[in-house]
Amino acid sequence: MPVRLYKGTIIYTDTPEKLTVIKNGYIAVKDGRIEEVITGELPKKYAESDIIDYGDSLIIPAFSDLHIHAPQFVERGVGMDCLLFDWLNNYTFPQESRFKDINYAKTIYAQLIYEFLKHGTFQTALFTTIHYDSCSLLYKMLMESGMYAYSGKINMDMNSPEFYVEETGKSIEDTERFIIEHRDLSDHVKPIIIPRFAPTCSRELLEGLGKLAQKYDLGLHTHLVESKAEAAWSKELFPDCASDGEIYEKLGLLNGKGPKLFAHVIFPTETEDRILKQYDCVSVHCPDSTSNITAGIMPSSTMMDNGYKIALGSDVGGGHFLGMYRQVARTVQISKMKEFYEPDYKRLVLSKAFYMATVTGGSVFGKIGKFKPGYIFNALVINGLQDEGYELSPEECLERFCYAGDDRNIKHRFIDGREINPEKVFEKLKTM
Amino acid sequence: MPVRLYKGTIIYTDTPEKLTVIKNGYIAVKDGRIEEVITGELPKKYAESDIIDYGDSLIIPAFSDLHIHAPQFVERGVGMDCLLFDWLNNYTFPQESRFKDINYAKTIYAQLIYEFLKHGTFQTALFTTIHYDSCSLLYKMLMESGMYAYSGKINMDMNSPEFYVEETGKSIEDTERFIIEHRDLSDHVKPIIIPRFAPTCSRELLEGLGKLAQKYDLGLHTHLVESKAEAAWSKELFPDCASDGEIYEKLGLLNGKGPKLFAHVIFPTETEDRILKQYDCVSVHCPDSTSNITAGIMPSSTMMDNGYKIALGSDVGGGHFLGMYRQVARTVQISKMKEFYEPDYKRLVLSKAFYMATVTGGSVFGKIGKFKPGYIFNALVINGLQDEGYELSPEECLERFCYAGDDRNIKHRFIDGREINPEKVFEKLKTM
Repeated sequence: MPVRLYKGTIIYTDTPEKLTVIKNGYIAVKDGRIEEVITGELPKKYAESDIIDYGDSLIIPAFSDLHIHAPQFVERGVGMDCLLFDWLNNYTFPQESRFKDINYAKTIYAQLIYEFLKHGTFQTALFTTIHYDSCSLLYKMLMESGMYAYSGKINMDMNSPEFYVEETGKSIEDTERFIIEHRDLSDHVKPIIIPRFAPTCSRELLEGLGKLAQKYDLGLHTHLVESKAEAAWSKELFPDCASDGEIYEKLGLLNGKGPKLFAHVIFPTETEDRILKQYDCVSVHCPDSTSNITAGIMPSSTMMDNGYKIALGSDVGGGHFLGMYRQVARTVQISKMKEFYEPDYKRLVLSKAFYMATVTGGSVFGKIGKFKPGYIFNALVINGLQDEGYELSPEECLERFCYAGDDRNIKHRFIDGREINPEKVFEKLKTM
Repeated sequence: MPVRLYKGTIIYTDTPEKLTVIKNGYIAVKDGRIEEVITGELPKKYAESDIIDYGDSLIIPAFSDLHIHAPQFVERGVGMDCLLFDWLNNYTFPQESRFKDINYAKTIYAQLIYEFLKHGTFQTALFTTIHYDSCSLLYKMLMESGMYAYSGKINMDMNSPEFYVEETGKSIEDTERFIIEHRDLSDHVKPIIIPRFAPTCSRELLEGLGKLAQKYDLGLHTHLVESKAEAAWSKELFPDCASDGEIYEKLGLLNGKGPKLFAHVIFPTETEDRILKQYDCVSVHCPDSTSNITAGIMPSSTMMDNGYKIALGSDVGGGHFLGMYRQVARTVQISKMKEFYEPDYKRLVLSKAFYMATVTGGSVFGKIGKFKPGYIFNALVINGLQDEGYELSPEECLERFCYAGDDRNIKHRFIDGREINPEKVFEKLKTM
C-alpha cells in the first residue's frame, strides 16, 4: 500500500500533562501504521502521495473502553434507581442468562459493536456471559468488525442465582476449549481470563483458571476492590489472602503474559498497591458507573502520579453511555467531587483523562493511542464543535467534544488506516 | 380552535414519588390548554376531533431550565480545567463584556434559543449581562421563540473587573427603564430582578433593586450560598445580615409577587431555611455545574422531603450541556455521591428529579409541567429509545432518555399546543 497523508489539526497526548496540538499537520500512514507526523511543510518524498485534507477538523486517537459488560448493553441507562443487589437480581442476572440463546446474543451484540464504532471506541476489553456459543459468536463478530479486543467467557460457580451459574469443572473445561479454539483466529481479538469477581468464584475454579493463564500465557480481566462490602466479602471467603488482589496473585492468575485489567480499584490497600506495580496491571476507572452504583471514587489522580497505569471504562450497564469521550470529561468532573470531599486529593485535568482513554487504554493492544511513528492509525476525525461568532481553540474543541459532543461530531473513523463505515459493519454482523 | 387529541404513552409526575404512565392515552388540547387526559376508550364527544397518533412514543412535559447564563452559552464545555476565579477572569468576564455589541448578542442568543428548543426546554429563567440593548434583544427574541421566560438585565457595581462593571445609579436607572419598557410586551416573557450575587452588589444597589421589586411586584433571580467562600464573603460585606439570604430579605428584594429563584443553595443555614419557606422561594439545583466548579452538592433530597421547592438548572456555562433531561439523570447520580460521602443523606429517585425539572420548574410560569386539565400543553414527543430484542417499559424509556438520550429522540415539540420547528424559529431569530 502506498503512503497516504491525512491533514488536519492533530491532537493527542504524548505525556499525560498536556495535549500535543499540531495545526495543519500531516499524518503519513502506510500499511495501517504511522510513518511520520509532519509539522509545517510537506517533505518532497510525499509529493506524489494522496492527501486527504480534513481542514480545521481535529484528528484524534480512537478510544479504548477497557471495562464493559457486553450483555448489559441493553441495560444502559435503566434501573438506575435500584440498589446494587436489586439491580443485579432484577436486571442483570436474568438479562445475562438470556445469552444461552445465540440468536438473542447476535441481535444484542451486533447493536453493541455498531455503537462502539459509532462512538469511536475501537479497542475494548469485555465481560461476557458464561455461555460458550454466545461468547464465541461475540468473539467472531469483534473480529469481523475490525476492532481490537480482549474477550472470552466469564466464570462464576458460586454465590450466583440458580439459573445463572456454572459447575466448576465444566467452567474450567469450557474456558480451556474457548482458549484453544480462539487464540489463533485473529491478531486483533485475543482471549483473556474473566472470573466475574472473587466472591462468585470457588478457590478450585480460580486455581483452575490460574493454571490456564499460565499454560496459555493469558491476561486477566476482573473487578478489584470495587466497594468496601465486596472487599470484605472476598476476605471472608479467602481468609488466607490479605486482600482482594492477593486472591488472584496466590491462585496464579497474574502469571500469564497478557494484560491484567482490574476494574474500579476504589479502595486499594497496600497489598493492591504492591500487586498493581509488581504485575504491571492496568486499573480501569469507570467514573459514571462508580457514581451510579454509589461505589466511591478511584484515587486515579494520586495513582497516576505514583506511576500506576490507569485506563478508562464505560462499564455499561453500571455505566449508562458508550461514548468514551464522555468518560474523559466525567473523570475530570468526578475528580473534583473527590477533591471537594477529600481535600488532600488533587483533581485531574483533561489531558490526563484523555491519556487514560487513549494512550494507557491503547497500550494493552500494541502501539495504539498516540500519533507517533510505528503506531497503528486508529483515529477519529471530529468537527462541528464551533459556535458561530466565538472561536474555540483546538484544545477547547476537544474539551467540548468530551463534555457535550456526541457521535454526530465524528465524521471519519479509521482502524488500521482504513476508513470504516459503522452502518456497513452493522449490516454484516446481523447476517453472521 | 377545535379540540385536538394527541395519542401516545403519556408520562408525567403528579407527585414526586412516582411517574404517572398512561399507555394509549389521549390528551385533549383546546386553545393551548389541556381539556382532559383520557385513559381507555375515547368519549363520544371527541368522535369528530382530529387525532394525532404517536403510537408507542412517549408524550412528556417540556423541561424548565431555571438557571442559565445566556451569554455563557459559548463557554459550555470549555475551560473546565480552570479554578473558579481563573475561569471567571479568563473566560466569563471577557466573554460577557462582548455583549455591549448587539450584533454579537444576536448571533449568540439566536444559537442559544435554537438549542433550548432542540433540547425541549421551553421555560427558562436567564442570567444575562449588564448591557441594556443586548438584554432587550434577548427578551424580544425569547418572545419571538414562543418560550416562557423570566429575563432582564443583571446588576453588578463592585468586585467586578474594570471593563465589566456598572455605576450604581445607572444600574438602578437602567433596570427601572428595562422593567417599564418590557413588562407589558408579553404574557410569556416577564422581567425579573437579577443581581449577580451579593458580593458584586453594593448595599445601595441592592436597596435600589429592592425598591423596584416592590414597586413593580417583581421576582428575584440570584445565586445563594453557592460555596462556603461565597457565603463567607457575603457575610463580610454585609456584617449586619446573619447570612447570604438575609441580605436579600433586609434590602427588600423578596417583597415583590414574582418568583424568587435561588441558584445552588448548597450550604443553607437556618436563616436560609426560614427565608426559603417564608417567601415561597424556589431553590435551583444545578448538578453538573456544582460538580464542574467543585462547589459541593445541594441537599435537594432532604430539602424536598421537608417541603422546600426545588427546580433544576443547566447553569451553562458552569454547566456544560443544555439538555435538562440530562440534569434529571445527573440529579439522581450526584445524590448517590452525596449519600456515599454523607451517609445520613438519602439519594433521590428519577421521578423526583423529573418532577423538579418539569412540575416545580414549570410552576413559576403558570400551570405548566403536568398533564392535567387546565395545564398548558408544553410537551415533547420522544422515541427511538428501544433496542432490538429487549423491550423497555415506558418508565425505562424515559429513564434512558434522561441518562443517554439526546435531541434526536425528540420528534415533536409543542408550546401552547402548537407544534414548533426549531430550525424555522432559528432562521427568524437571525433576522431580528
